Amino acid sequence: MADPTPLDLDTKTALLSGRDMWTTESTEAAGVPSLLMCDGPHGVRKQSGGATEVHDSEPATCFPPAVALASSWDPELLRGVGEALGREARAQGVDVLLGPGVNIKRSPLCGRNFEYFSEDPLLSGVLGAAHVSGVQSQGVGASVKHFAANNQETDRMRVSADVDERALREIYLPAFERIVKEARPATVMAAYNRVNGVHATQHRALLAGILREEWGFDGLVVSDWGAVADRVAALVAGTDLEMPGTGGRTDAEVAAAVREGRLDEAVVDTAVGRLRELARRVRAESGADGSGAAGSDTKGSGADGSGAPGFDVDAHHRLAREAAADCLVLLKNDDGTLPLAPATRIAVLGEFARRPRYQGGGSSHVNATRVDSPLDELRLRLPDARVDFTDDPAQAADADVAVVFAGLREEDESEGFDREHLRLPADQVELIRAAATAAPRTVVVLLNGGVVSLEEWYADVDAVVEAWLPGQAGGGAIADVLSGRVNPSGRLAETVPLRLQDTPAYLNFPGGQGHVRYGEGVMVGYRYYESAEVAVRHPFGHGLSYTSFEETGFRVERTGADTATVSVTVTNTGGRFGKHVVQVYVAPAGRPVVSPVRELRAFTKVALAPGESTVVELPLERRAFAFWDIERGDWTVSAGRYEVQLGRDAHTVLASVGVELAGDRYRRPLTVESPVSEWFAHDAAGPALRKALAGGRMVGDDVLRMIASMPMRQFLAFLPEPLPQGLLEELSEA
Amino acid sequence: MADPTPLDLDTKTALLSGRDMWTTESTEAAGVPSLLMCDGPHGVRKQSGGATEVHDSEPATCFPPAVALASSWDPELLRGVGEALGREARAQGVDVLLGPGVNIKRSPLCGRNFEYFSEDPLLSGVLGAAHVSGVQSQGVGASVKHFAANNQETDRMRVSADVDERALREIYLPAFERIVKEARPATVMAAYNRVNGVHATQHRALLAGILREEWGFDGLVVSDWGAVADRVAALVAGTDLEMPGTGGRTDAEVAAAVREGRLDEAVVDTAVGRLRELARRVRAESGADGSGAAGSDTKGSGADGSGAPGFDVDAHHRLAREAAADCLVLLKNDDGTLPLAPATRIAVLGEFARRPRYQGGGSSHVNATRVDSPLDELRLRLPDARVDFTDDPAQAADADVAVVFAGLREEDESEGFDREHLRLPADQVELIRAAATAAPRTVVVLLNGGVVSLEEWYADVDAVVEAWLPGQAGGGAIADVLSGRVNPSGRLAETVPLRLQDTPAYLNFPGGQGHVRYGEGVMVGYRYYESAEVAVRHPFGHGLSYTSFEETGFRVERTGADTATVSVTVTNTGGRFGKHVVQVYVAPAGRPVVSPVRELRAFTKVALAPGESTVVELPLERRAFAFWDIERGDWTVSAGRYEVQLGRDAHTVLASVGVELAGDRYRRPLTVESPVSEWFAHDAAGPALRKALAGGRMVGDDVLRMIASMPMRQFLAFLPEPLPQGLLEELSEA
Repeated sequence: MADPTPLDLDTKTALLSGRDMWTTESTEAAGVPSLLMCDGPHGVRKQSGGATEVHDSEPATCFPPAVALASSWDPELLRGVGEALGREARAQGVDVLLGPGVNIKRSPLCGRNFEYFSEDPLLSGVLGAAHVSGVQSQGVGASVKHFAANNQETDRMRVSADVDERALREIYLPAFERIVKEARPATVMAAYNRVNGVHATQHRALLAGILREEWGFDGLVVSDWGAVADRVAALVAGTDLEMPGTGGRTDAEVAAAVREGRLDEAVVDTAVGRLRELARRVRAESGADGSGAAGSDTKGSGADGSGAPGFDVDAHHRLAREAAADCLVLLKNDDGTLPLAPATRIAVLGEFARRPRYQGGGSSHVNATRVDSPLDELRLRLPDARVDFTDDPAQAADADVAVVFAGLREEDESEGFDREHLRLPADQVELIRAAATAAPRTVVVLLNGGVVSLEEWYADVDAVVEAWLPGQAGGGAIADVLSGRVNPSGRLAETVPLRLQDTPAYLNFPGGQGHVRYGEGVMVGYRYYESAEVAVRHPFGHGLSYTSFEETGFRVERTGADTATVSVTVTNTGGRFGKHVVQVYVAPAGRPVVSPVRELRAFTKVALAPGESTVVELPLERRAFAFWDIERGDWTVSAGRYEVQLGRDAHTVLASVGVELAGDRYRRPLTVESPVSEWFAHDAAGPALRKALAGGRMVGDDVLRMIASMPMRQFLAFLPEPLPQGLLEELSEA
Repeated sequence: MADPTPLDLDTKTALLSGRDMWTTESTEAAGVPSLLMCDGPHGVRKQSGGATEVHDSEPATCFPPAVALASSWDPELLRGVGEALGREARAQGVDVLLGPGVNIKRSPLCGRNFEYFSEDPLLSGVLGAAHVSGVQSQGVGASVKHFAANNQETDRMRVSADVDERALREIYLPAFERIVKEARPATVMAAYNRVNGVHATQHRALLAGILREEWGFDGLVVSDWGAVADRVAALVAGTDLEMPGTGGRTDAEVAAAVREGRLDEAVVDTAVGRLRELARRVRAESGADGSGAAGSDTKGSGADGSGAPGFDVDAHHRLAREAAADCLVLLKNDDGTLPLAPATRIAVLGEFARRPRYQGGGSSHVNATRVDSPLDELRLRLPDARVDFTDDPAQAADADVAVVFAGLREEDESEGFDREHLRLPADQVELIRAAATAAPRTVVVLLNGGVVSLEEWYADVDAVVEAWLPGQAGGGAIADVLSGRVNPSGRLAETVPLRLQDTPAYLNFPGGQGHVRYGEGVMVGYRYYESAEVAVRHPFGHGLSYTSFEETGFRVERTGADTATVSVTVTNTGGRFGKHVVQVYVAPAGRPVVSPVRELRAFTKVALAPGESTVVELPLERRAFAFWDIERGDWTVSAGRYEVQLGRDAHTVLASVGVELAGDRYRRPLTVESPVSEWFAHDAAGPALRKALAGGRMVGDDVLRMIASMPMRQFLAFLPEPLPQGLLEELSEA
């Protein structure tokens, strides 16, 4: 490929900020096209010229938002949805689709949790990587967001996430890391918030250091919309592209900085190079770079103002339904209340049955091509049943079963603000209780983006389906699960706590005065509940099925110094086809830091016909056993016996196998700064020291215990008589 | 007073470190005497020349350690004990008595908690100030320790307490602040640990900034023994005196730094001046400065090797007994089990009944003048009872009541290491359970320095007396309380939790790899349990009595913009003389930061005969309503309605009165960095902005809610058309 045409400074700085809200600047001379970027973690939100409101965008399929997709625990499902998103984006002429959001759910109150996958970094990373691969397979760039530690909406443009290095490395960064390494996203979006006092867009250690140097990210870093506080500082730190444009104001700042010698022009050139590369990549892969005509017609078809969406609307709606059905989590199902019998009298309550909530508010809002009504779909799915919608729980007494639709309203949760409690609206709680009192059996279907507390009514009802925000075809998916057409296979990607007060960040969320302390460190989600032995309503990983599974022959084999392979046989022992999630946790050993009692380290989803068996093999890489070692600034595996656990969920261990690992052969050298305890514990130095000190003072065992943590330097100062010349030097090499 | 004789540099640097373990260097030329410093928070531990072990010290009265004294909630008691300590110190020629320890009990596991007062900074500060006043009234200097954030023993010489500014100011510093301001301690001891990465001895912001400049401390800062890592840095930061000496090594380092121009000699001179001033103060006040003979004989009398202690041993033992009796906390007393009837059959179990544990291990260990046996004292106190000691709980069946002595052994807790659990030794739990099964009634007397969990046996027994470590006369004090001679009046100075897992620092203690995260911030002790609604066995402030008290007429009156006075009438409504603690808490309002639901802000202890009443008046100063404002770097009172609460304990609110405070009239100025929400909420600017933007784009209410936290600067960049020239400037002054 020929060298690009040299560009003058003003042209380059202009290229590195938006032309307007959604497109980048172009320069025909140098063949850099204008790129179109659109919101779209679960649907394309392309706003045409005159759009002034978030809701005013081109029609697109609203797939299940991340909160639902994550509950599938199924990367193949995510890949499929990602491909469909990519097709729609390409059809509408979109070059970069802004998503997925892979921030960790630190508190259930975060208003944007519906856009995020999980409280667990492994699950978030595996699903996020599949999503990105799917989108990018269609020649559209993805934008993994929001990098990093963007875990609340309160004061989101200013708040500093005060988080220690180990929590960043073990909890908040691994999903990004996996996606960068496995799926090579075209762009990463730098977040609004500050991290330890520094704006994420200006955070050199995060962007230039960890993201590019350590992980090898070779794409473009784009700012979240309006996230750049200091354009020059952001550019230096590694934020290549500022979005949206500022009418040239910040371009001029950058140019001035170069002209005044405060900024090396090479920094600008590097960022322009990345923008060129992004353009080449998305235009080449989509066939729209001028060098090949393939697909260029399709690409433009949705962008011509004709209203034709340019993709198979029906097929995508079906996909949205199939996906949603595999995301629903059956939380409770006493006495086989579900699935509903074909010929039964059903009282349906709750306005969400007719007008379901299926997506969240904010930048991810999709103008759906159509929306399924759960009530209508239930009637279609159960033609022999009598399905009556009613406002009046007294009437539920005449039915065999009441199905109550409840959840959070649009005003209860959204991008832009956080919730303040976990309760359902009071009238919904009342409705559920009244129905449960009246009806012989009661099923609750929940539609909500953030976790809600179930305690006000859980014991009163027979079955609970957590449908999350299931996307535009959620109504059909709910009917599929209630009727038994689809056997539910979702598993919780986040804990359902008993009380808000029990959540790990309770007193540290959302902070105040510009700071939020991540005081719980790595103890996020189930890591906290399990380690602090706090009871929950439903643990992470929980989810019921209409069939039963048995897991046998759980084995763990060492495959290297610090790696292993897990194998287990899964059998569908029930009478229906179903899907099961194998969950493998590791309980760490021998660490110098407090660690969660167990962490999810591998998982897979298998589909089995009745009676069918399969053997699942899962690798456990070195990282499955490692912690972030702040002394070494690296991942360390401590020597010791690790328990590899087969979990039904994060709380319930079905089987456990110990595996002895050599660990990193790293022994801190003995120096005069080493504590006395390390000297005395040393194989060779300890006995020699004791001997040398035998005639001295101040070394009784009671004293020794008290000064165990004293540096040897200070211990020496305590001794009335010095040690023999050279003894310490000699011993430190022993 | 004449100017001191000029000293040469080497002499000065030598003066600023110890001559040996316990004394400072002297220079006769300049009239600076050698000062003797001894351990002694609850008893003088003077080691004579040949002493090589902690336990090898001159006889002294072992008063109740801080854990017990704090439960008295009685500053007058502390002052009396302090005076006695000062008398003994003076009698033994001690110039500075190292104590009290006023560190906050962050975790119940801290091995040195027995040397500290409380989980609450007000209680710690008031009691500590009384202690210091008492000691110093005898012409002996006190040393308030360990400054600061020294809250664990694990890795204590190296660990960095990573604690945010607000928690430091509201929790970890106020006890020191009060003592410095109210009791003018002669010295403050800089701690072993690091604070936010900087050694406490080298922490300029803490020592030069907060301690001296802000609080006006005019005494000497002495290092904890062996706590200086870098002598020059420590001196610059404000650590005047390094103890013990280093044989001249670090003196030479300081001298070299001055000679090489790295250290201003004025720093050395200032520290020498403080040492001189300390010498003048303790020698003048004790009459031993050569200018007056009074007391100089007494001063030396214990130091002549004759073995005569030089103080009234019997009187001090009696004082230790009276003090201990007022420290015991009656935790449980079902059906009036206590006091024991005069003529009753008592089975006494547990070896602590004969050889009680009464003090903790480590530098505070006192060579007691005598030790009371609880068993002997009980027999003396109840001459008509049959008191049988037995090893065999089967034998308790023949008694009317079993009294089981239990607690922690010396090896379970000490300076130098932290506990890992809250359980009593298993054999003691077994003994209690067996006694409770066999005996008609069972009383448990606990002897322990750190809080223990009661859950394994609490429900099985009828009464529980928490005697803590009660000092050498604890046996008599226990007999006094069990027999009813003394009506117990102790109140818990720390919460008794149900489980270790419930404690606020559980997963953040003791940290690792050189760091401990104070993740709970200000939510320490009851502040956490009450705010997170975590159930406990006994709340902070709990304690029963043999009589009953009624509190009536609780009133709160504003006395200024942000101050108030509380008054309440306390009546002894029972049949015995008794003492009662009035506890006043404040529930804060309107703060921009998450705050504890209530905090102890005033307390006093009153003594009342049966039927007697008294009116208690307590002032609430501005600080009772303030939080540490990290934006202003100062104490701020938010405007709003505060609830002033009369508490039976930290959990039980007996009466509450609202008081409306004006608060600090501080409004953040509107700038382009202010969030959009602050602009739109502004009385004048908000409506004007809405009007100006009416014709524009991107300002729908849904967008506005999403970008509420966006800085105005970025919001402006979003606008397709600029605002009218000068509008923002105009509005920001509105």
